[in-house]
Amino acid sequence: MNIGIIAPEEKIRGWVSTFTKYDENIKISVYPDIDYKKIECICLWKQPKGVLGKLKNLKLIHSMGAGVDHIINDPSYPKGVPICRISDDKLSFSMTNYIINAVLFHHRRTLKYQKDKIDRIWDQNMHPEILPVKIGILGFGALGSDAADKLKYMGFDVIGYSLNKKENAKIKVFCGEELDTFISRINILVCTVPYTKKTHHLLDKKLFNKLQKGTYLINVSRGKVQNEDHILEYIDNKTLSGAFLDVFEIEPLPRSSKLWNHEKIQITPHNASITNEDAAVPQIIDNYKRALAGDILVNQVNIDDEY
Amino acid sequence: MNIGIIAPEEKIRGWVSTFTKYDENIKISVYPDIDYKKIECICLWKQPKGVLGKLKNLKLIHSMGAGVDHIINDPSYPKGVPICRISDDKLSFSMTNYIINAVLFHHRRTLKYQKDKIDRIWDQNMHPEILPVKIGILGFGALGSDAADKLKYMGFDVIGYSLNKKENAKIKVFCGEELDTFISRINILVCTVPYTKKTHHLLDKKLFNKLQKGTYLINVSRGKVQNEDHILEYIDNKTLSGAFLDVFEIEPLPRSSKLWNHEKIQITPHNASITNEDAAVPQIIDNYKRALAGDILVNQVNIDDEY
Repeated sequence: MNIGIIAPEEKIRGWVSTFTKYDENIKISVYPDIDYKKIECICLWKQPKGVLGKLKNLKLIHSMGAGVDHIINDPSYPKGVPICRISDDKLSFSMTNYIINAVLFHHRRTLKYQKDKIDRIWDQNMHPEILPVKIGILGFGALGSDAADKLKYMGFDVIGYSLNKKENAKIKVFCGEELDTFISRINILVCTVPYTKKTHHLLDKKLFNKLQKGTYLINVSRGKVQNEDHILEYIDNKTLSGAFLDVFEIEPLPRSSKLWNHEKIQITPHNASITNEDAAVPQIIDNYKRALAGDILVNQVNIDDEY
Repeated sequence: MNIGIIAPEEKIRGWVSTFTKYDENIKISVYPDIDYKKIECICLWKQPKGVLGKLKNLKLIHSMGAGVDHIINDPSYPKGVPICRISDDKLSFSMTNYIINAVLFHHRRTLKYQKDKIDRIWDQNMHPEILPVKIGILGFGALGSDAADKLKYMGFDVIGYSLNKKENAKIKVFCGEELDTFISRINILVCTVPYTKKTHHLLDKKLFNKLQKGTYLINVSRGKVQNEDHILEYIDNKTLSGAFLDVFEIEPLPRSSKLWNHEKIQITPHNASITNEDAAVPQIIDNYKRALAGDILVNQVNIDDEY
């Protein structure tokens, strides 16, 4: 078995040792020291554009995380080679607890009580929860639906939206042309969509204009899904009551960005959910063996939908 | 039907109108303008000590919230009159989302990212979650067990402790003499015990000495369950990594308290969960009717255990 890793911005040592731990016979090579003719399974994260075209013996392309836009948007992607992504409980656990943290940070007025603490103010006159609350999960894939399920279990009113029809016994999931209806019914918007041509700057003033006044925005998808100038404008005009953002149009977020010192914006450095090598590596090995045997792959990406 | 309300520190108008809305024939009187000889059902919240002894026709004492220590610790409490408390989904919903908010505030390093935001620092070098996490729910009544259930469903490792044995299919609940074992196994301690003679200053250095280093403390029970001097001492000696407190030995928390400006302590003004009149009033009316009919009461308090 011949696996290559191309992820120049990542620390790879843990991945290599994890692969070796699971199967001593796997030959692992790491970019740039890889034999382009021999690699059958390539693991990718933010690979240099064009490099995929050099791989002549590929059976499988595996994302090293949940996202695959770095693969699909690479013009050298060899059509016909299957793409898989990582999906694991630990990934969902982290992403969901990030989302719930952001929802509750808003819902329980954390900023108000932090400010009151500085001023030594004991204020029981305001209801401690922002009510009513209706949470909309925009993007109802593995991560979005997990967050929706957990929030619903906590007792929150949750609905979802997905481009394609999704069945869910407990949660109403709008789809296709129903985006405007979905958007108009919520006051917390959680964005978990993949980054595709269709979702580029989806979170812009055109969408914000359809929101209820005071909606709280949480984005854990990809930075280019949001228009940051419009977010600032729509917080200032009160359409948005604030935003909890893990992703940004340019990352790392430039020091000059106006987001940093906006009191109604929370920032984390694109770390809502980190892929865990121990969870990911067995899935990649399993899919590699399935690809060699011609079996059905797990978490294969539907290329037409770009996710 | 003759109901009295004694809650001098509360706004009562909403309660009176809610009672009237549910049953026009109920006669409601509010302290101090009540006829002590006629009242059959008395609703209490922080009543003046001694006032209970004047009620000569009592069939039922109802707390206006989940706590009953204000009744049991009143020396004028007429033994033999049943005491009930409010327990409702909305109460659990609020209490549980408060507790989850506090757990995640710690677990997701909210303070670190808020500080990094001020300094415009993009730090991906630290794991964004404090791991491993093992949550201990001290006090496994209606509220504690609801929080435990929701945290477990989110994927957290949760155990509980209750004075008396509690059966739970999903969560290990320690009891009786096992307090030290319970305490030694956790690194987030959530206190939901009732206030009784046994729990007075339960959260003190004697208990803190048995904790793992760096345990996070969340107290949503009663202020007198904690020793605030010891909390400060044990945060400073690193036994506790911080505290998220809704209750205090003296409330409102005095402006001179050292808790206010301690960076590792979060403060909310005893509002984790507010009783909702619309949820509470039907329960009180129902219990009153049950008491008159000699039926089994709902959420009656076991006097010997003081909760």
